[in-house]
This record gives sequence, C-alpha cells and structure tokens, in this order.
Amino acid sequence: MPRMSVEELEQFLTAHFPYAEHRSLMVERIEENFAQVRLCYHDRHLRPGGTISGASLMTLADMAMYVALLGMIGPVALAVTTNLNINFLRKPGQRDVIGECKLLKLGKRLAVGEVKMYSDGDSELVAHATVTYSIPT
Amino acid sequence: MPRMSVEELEQFLTAHFPYAEHRSLMVERIEENFAQVRLCYHDRHLRPGGTISGASLMTLADMAMYVALLGMIGPVALAVTTNLNINFLRKPGQRDVIGECKLLKLGKRLAVGEVKMYSDGDSELVAHATVTYSIPT
Amino acid sequence: MPRMSVEELEQFLTAHFPYAEHRSLMVERIEENFAQVRLCYHDRHLRPGGTISGASLMTLADMAMYVALLGMIGPVALAVTTNLNINFLRKPGQRDVIGECKLLKLGKRLAVGEVKMYSDGDSELVAHATVTYSIPT
Amino acid sequence: MPRMSVEELEQFLTAHFPYAEHRSLMVERIEENFAQVRLCYHDRHLRPGGTISGASLMTLADMAMYVALLGMIGPVALAVTTNLNINFLRKPGQRDVIGECKLLKLGKRLAVGEVKMYSDGDSELVAHATVTYSIPT
Repeated sequence: MPRMSVEELEQFLTAHFPYAEHRSLMVERIEENFAQVRLCYHDRHLRPGGTISGASLMTLADMAMYVALLGMIGPVALAVTTNLNINFLRKPGQRDVIGECKLLKLGKRLAVGEVKMYSDGDSELVAHATVTYSIPT
Repeated sequence: MPRMSVEELEQFLTAHFPYAEHRSLMVERIEENFAQVRLCYHDRHLRPGGTISGASLMTLADMAMYVALLGMIGPVALAVTTNLNINFLRKPGQRDVIGECKLLKLGKRLAVGEVKMYSDGDSELVAHATVTYSIPT
Repeated sequence: MPRMSVEELEQFLTAHFPYAEHRSLMVERIEENFAQVRLCYHDRHLRPGGTISGASLMTLADMAMYVALLGMIGPVALAVTTNLNINFLRKPGQRDVIGECKLLKLGKRLAVGEVKMYSDGDSELVAHATVTYSIPT
Repeated sequence: MPRMSVEELEQFLTAHFPYAEHRSLMVERIEENFAQVRLCYHDRHLRPGGTISGASLMTLADMAMYVALLGMIGPVALAVTTNLNINFLRKPGQRDVIGECKLLKLGKRLAVGEVKMYSDGDSELVAHATVTYSIPT
C-alpha cells in the first residue's frame, strides 16, 4: 500500500520545490506502484510548431516517477534520478498532458519505472519514458 | 562550416521560444558539428538537496543538441527530438552548468549527438546525454 | 491486421539469418502491433552468476521488435535498429525467457516499440526495453 | 592504475564465459578508466543487408564496459549491467569492429561508461553506447 496520499505528496512538493515547474504539475492519483500526474497546459510550455516542448514532457516523466517512488517509500527527498530515456512519439495537442508511471522494479538501491504520456482525452501515447532512481541508504 | 552564428542562433531562440527556459540558456560557441550552451545558475533550478534539477539538465542537453543541429542545417524550427537518454553522474555545484554537444551523425532524416555537461570550472562530468532529432524533409 | 503469420516470419528469419542467434529465438505469437518471441534456454546464454547474459536479452528485445514490425509492414529485411534502451531488472531464472513487444508508434520512417521480458511462468519482468527502427522508404 | 592486465582479463573471460560470444571478442588495451575490445569479423555476425548485426554490436558494447570496469575494480564477476542505451549510426563495414570504452563515473555502487564503436581503420562511429553497471557491495 502507498505510504503517502495525493495530499501529502502535493504538500511535500510545494515545500521542497518552491520555485519549480511542479506548480504546473499536479499529482492526481497514487496507487500501489503507480502515480498519475497532470501537466497543466500553458503557453510557456510551447516550442516551435505550437507543440508542448520536450523539456516539459521530460519534467513530467521525471516528476511522475519521483511521485510514484515517494508514494511507496515515503518522503525521501534525496532520491535522485540516475537515468532517463524518453521517446517522443506524436505531437501533443494544445491541452493538458497526463503522465502515468508504473514502477517496474522497487529495489533497495534502485527503482525503475515507465511513464506513459497522453494528451488529456486521447488514447494514443505522445511520449514514453523509462526512469531510474537511486535510493539513498 | 556552420550556417548560423552564435548571434543568429540567439535571435532565433528569442523569436521562437518567447516564454521559454532558454532565457537561462545562452549559446556560447558554435563550430562544425559542435555547440556549447550555458545554463545560468538560478535558485529556481534547484531541487531537494540544493542541487540543480534533472529537469534543468535535460533542458540544457536538448537545447545544446538543437543548437548544434541548427548551426549545421540552418533555422529549421521544426526539427524535433525523437529520443533523449541521460545519465546523471555527479551532484552539480551551485553554479552555471556548461553543455557541450558534439554531433555523432548528421543524416538526412536523423541527427544524433552527445552532450557532456560540467559545472563551470570543473573537469568532471555532472551528466551525459545522447539525443536524436528528426529532421523534416 | 498483421501481414505476416508466425510461420511466414519463421521462414523469413531462417532464410535471412542463416547463422544467427535466432535459432534459439522462436516466434510464438503475432497480433496487431504485437509479437511474442521465446528465447530457448541453453547453457551458452549464461554469464557469471549462472544467469542469462545481458547480450541474450538484448538480442531477444531487438528480435521481438523486428518481428512485431515485420508482422505489420511485411518482409522488409532492411528495416534497421536505430536506438535500443534496456533496463535489466531482476536475475532471470535458468529457463526460457518470453519477450512481448508492443508497438507504441508505427510511422512511415520510424517505429518504436516496448519489449517486456519474463522468465517463462513468472509474472515479474526480468528486463524492459524500448527499441526504435528506421523503415527504408 | 588498472588492477588487471589484458592477459588477466582474457583469462578471466575464458574461465567465466565458457560458451560465450566473447571468443570473438578480444581485449586489446586496458588503461586507467579505459578499455579497447575487438569484435572479430565472422559471417555469423551478419544480418540482412550484409551488415554486422545490432546484437553483435550490443554484445561488444556491454563487454567493453565490463572489461573497463573489471580493469579498475578487479575480477568482480558479479558486476551486472543495469542499463544499456545504444544508437546505431552507420552501417559497419564487413570487417572487425573496435569498441573503446571510457568510464564516465566509477562510484561505489554504480559505474557508467560510454562506448564508441568503429569499423577497423575508419574514423567514423558506427555505433555509440552508454552502459551502467551495478557493483555488488
């Protein structure tokens, strides 16, 4: 069972990322080995072509994994990304993007998750990422 | 020889990314198959642990590749990232990060580059990325 | 609907990879945007620790993607891998490994798939890969 | 300084990989944080198009990293790959491929290296990989 609720994770993020991008990222669901995070659409996420920037999607993928992991291990702020691989698959629409992270492995030292990203309301992936975190011991 | 100068690339970025992160990213050098971009240190790039966030480094890697590519092919705004892989190696210092991108392949449809990232003044890598762009035909 | 059956794919592989590893790789299922391939257990796949080598799992991932792609586009032998990313998650058992490939994108020039690998009879992943192929035009 | 010589590494590989692919892989140079490994050309490495298979290049990348790591930490057979990312850049010639691995990080728990692969005698990369190993503690 998750150790942190959506509300606890939102409070944690607000406390630890005072300036950050995460204010456009909202935790929506936490389940066992799973998290769903929403990237709220805003013009500042756009890149040429009127599409949401790769940087915004990478930030979403990293945050979805961080939240899925903290949901399981509790508020370990110092868990850090060691590897992130992302494939950009389709041009996202000009609306919110939903990131769903599923933990593939939760070890003592390393956790690996995959993140599927969709434009809100669409079933086709706009991007797919795998993310590895190192867990401090 | 590069087709765009540092000044032309800076103007291009300002015109095409009005809101973007790139205002903290400065193009510093353009050479054949090479670009150097600086991520200017700012508190808003921090994550827990007082270190520069992975999201900021990924944005730097992607931009360094974009700039190295545009330097060679000219202002093709619609070149898009298809894959980015990044390894985070060491905790960056609380100062600027330098991203050096070298193109490994510049094909007609795909370009691949590697990006080495250093804290300004250090010789050890803080992160290493490989990035693939698709070039519209 | 797939354009090639399991039998057609097996014949194609036998014809085109006369020496190859694929003789220990068997195509088991082809569906729309999906393929299942079995890596038959053999001592020669072992590495220190008595576990199946990473090289064997990477070969499985690449072949599962190749087969899923050919299933959809027909016998285009010259489709080639451009990127492969693999995370090794758990030590595989000393038995067959099943690779399930799902196509995430099937474009005109690029196809991207994810491959989940399990020890036969287990539900936990031993490895997870994402693979990109370039399709000749 | 490296802890193992080319001869010691060759003996180690012969002892620990009795069946393996490595008989077509020869350790050529070991230096501080560096290894060079040769993939000896053989028809069985070919794939359609008459080119060396991706599987052979991935095996080369993984082995070059393993050897570079063991060179530094000694004969720790149970060091295992956790992540491998490879970009295939150009069609290799029908001759040996040289893999040069440089360690980017050698930590207590994780080591990360990059591997550049060339056709023997060429200066252009045929493939580029980054590889992460977990070091047992």
